[in-house]
Amino acid sequence: MPGVLDIGDGSQDALLVRIRAGGFEGWGECEASPLTSIASYVCPMSHRACKPLRYSLEGKNINDIQDIRRISDSVHEHSPDLLQADHTLSGIDIALWDLLGKKTGEPVFHLLGYSKSFPKLPYASQLFGDTPEETFSKAKKTNADRFRAVKFGWGPFGKRGNDNDTAHIRAAREGMGNDAYLMIDAGTVFSENVLDAQKRLAALNDANAYWFEEPFINGSLNSYKKLSESNPKVALAGGEGCNNFVQAQAMIECAGLHFIQIDAGRIGGITISKKVADLAAEKNITYVNHTFTSHLALSASLQAYAGLKDHLISEYPVELKSLAQEIGKEKILRDTNGYIQAPEKPGLGITVDTEALKKYLVDVEIKVKGKTIYATPRL
Amino acid sequence: MPGVLDIGDGSQDALLVRIRAGGFEGWGECEASPLTSIASYVCPMSHRACKPLRYSLEGKNINDIQDIRRISDSVHEHSPDLLQADHTLSGIDIALWDLLGKKTGEPVFHLLGYSKSFPKLPYASQLFGDTPEETFSKAKKTNADRFRAVKFGWGPFGKRGNDNDTAHIRAAREGMGNDAYLMIDAGTVFSENVLDAQKRLAALNDANAYWFEEPFINGSLNSYKKLSESNPKVALAGGEGCNNFVQAQAMIECAGLHFIQIDAGRIGGITISKKVADLAAEKNITYVNHTFTSHLALSASLQAYAGLKDHLISEYPVELKSLAQEIGKEKILRDTNGYIQAPEKPGLGITVDTEALKKYLVDVEIKVKGKTIYATPRL
Repeated sequence: MPGVLDIGDGSQDALLVRIRAGGFEGWGECEASPLTSIASYVCPMSHRACKPLRYSLEGKNINDIQDIRRISDSVHEHSPDLLQADHTLSGIDIALWDLLGKKTGEPVFHLLGYSKSFPKLPYASQLFGDTPEETFSKAKKTNADRFRAVKFGWGPFGKRGNDNDTAHIRAAREGMGNDAYLMIDAGTVFSENVLDAQKRLAALNDANAYWFEEPFINGSLNSYKKLSESNPKVALAGGEGCNNFVQAQAMIECAGLHFIQIDAGRIGGITISKKVADLAAEKNITYVNHTFTSHLALSASLQAYAGLKDHLISEYPVELKSLAQEIGKEKILRDTNGYIQAPEKPGLGITVDTEALKKYLVDVEIKVKGKTIYATPRL
Repeated sequence: MPGVLDIGDGSQDALLVRIRAGGFEGWGECEASPLTSIASYVCPMSHRACKPLRYSLEGKNINDIQDIRRISDSVHEHSPDLLQADHTLSGIDIALWDLLGKKTGEPVFHLLGYSKSFPKLPYASQLFGDTPEETFSKAKKTNADRFRAVKFGWGPFGKRGNDNDTAHIRAAREGMGNDAYLMIDAGTVFSENVLDAQKRLAALNDANAYWFEEPFINGSLNSYKKLSESNPKVALAGGEGCNNFVQAQAMIECAGLHFIQIDAGRIGGITISKKVADLAAEKNITYVNHTFTSHLALSASLQAYAGLKDHLISEYPVELKSLAQEIGKEKILRDTNGYIQAPEKPGLGITVDTEALKKYLVDVEIKVKGKTIYATPRL
């Protein structure tokens, strides 16, 4: 976006990945910090375990799903000491699945082994208002828009005391009515502090909240575990910060979560997301997509659990900035029953609107030793 | 270095951080992928939780250790969705401790609360030879250089079958003699595969190896735990890949490790390293520095556990490329008993040799929308 605000809205910029091979084109999207991820793609090699991402991708064959796994494995073998690698791989992996889907004429969820994609109940994912009154209005509008589930997060939550948070939670419930699913997202604001998180439980229980999300920073297994063992009544959700499989595995097995939330744009793409979904199903933890950006990212994040019928809930962004809105020509919209589904189309089923995006394109140039190693390609 | 080889030698490039404030200058070093970390420092903000690192640093006051902690906390609050942030913070945090030490005239370990720095037994840390014969020669030379401890890692280990690995381990022991500490570093080559790691145990036990390091990727708690519970006899070491406190905490508490290895250049600097050292001491896990680069990085990595007398072992790089050798004017050398110590000098006690480094300086320029947002500063 021409201007980026200091708010918890991840739709304000985008890094798209376009991969061309054999006459086909696949698109993916990485979550957050485009410039840093671009740098990780083109940077000079530091040593054996710190190679740029391009090393594992360019010139490789993509004929079947094993080829995609090989590229994912290659990044993990050749770039593990490049911290940003997993975020960059995410967009690459998503684009590869899209590309292979287009080549084979199959939706990605078919390629993943699911015979069909089941309907998901979308929750209208949005930021808290600045005041309880504003949160109430947003909830009221969401209810009027016939959403049966809503999530409020970030904004002032956790920053202005427990009474203020209680007022926001109440306002959200009052605006949505008693029948709706209401989720509350603390946005990691309590860091590792269990007591601060526990103070919010009474209001969450009074409002019959469906889950309490990310009270703590990702991977703080002890804090999650302690909170889960303190009989919080409300279910715990987390995991969007996981950037590889073993981190998600630890959150599933050691954090006392009921819901594991995975962003395909961060964890390493659809390949790793599917591995996490398989584990979640095995461990009776409910898998939920994390998506706060475009419908391209939404389609990518839905694929990994499209075929898991009982994993019903889906994050659905409703406050996208125009950039994120315009990325896909097609939208994933609610059906008459209020459900969404992964598109029944080849690949991810989203056509990137390159014409519309031209006005947002940011020119970036990276020079090393006087030589240009990256320049923004034309759309 | 003018040329970077595809080997597990992290001393082939360097990202130095220089911070100036109040007439003082502090220096730090980040591990791996300089361009990516630079990008994370100057990138445009993506959203509230994805700000460039400069946001938390520039213009801030540095008068006492609380100011350093505030900057570390600020990065964790404002940049948690920027994956590379912890690696970049590492160099910044190290430079801040160096700067504050110079301002106060105190060694960093004093500022951390240690009354003195205890001697550490350095192990000569190096790569396996390409053949067992070469490993034998390297071990022989290390023994001749009067090192009482050695570590071999990476190279062909885990890539040419168990017999080859066995031959290398044997060769290392034979070259060093029976009295030396011998550590073996698998360099995460077995990914999460416990059986592959277990196959190496017989040779490790026959050679009386002191520890078996990083058989698996960082954070694979299940694999570490399973291996540790299978009565491996040899102690397990790991943790260099941790890029924040909670990851190290999980490795200490859930992985069955005997040794936790922390790189101050990756985990977020000296601030987070010290927090891990405190936890390790509490949990009776031995803290060891991870260092495969310069003596500036070595001094930084020693500070966090300088005052822990019983945490005796120290990684000591012996195959540094000339770039890494020339970073510091002073070297941390063994005393007559073969021990090393964190320097008893203000800050980190290492003067960066800017004159010597001029020949290695790589010109980098990053332009966004036609405006230069980063250009390599002059030394």
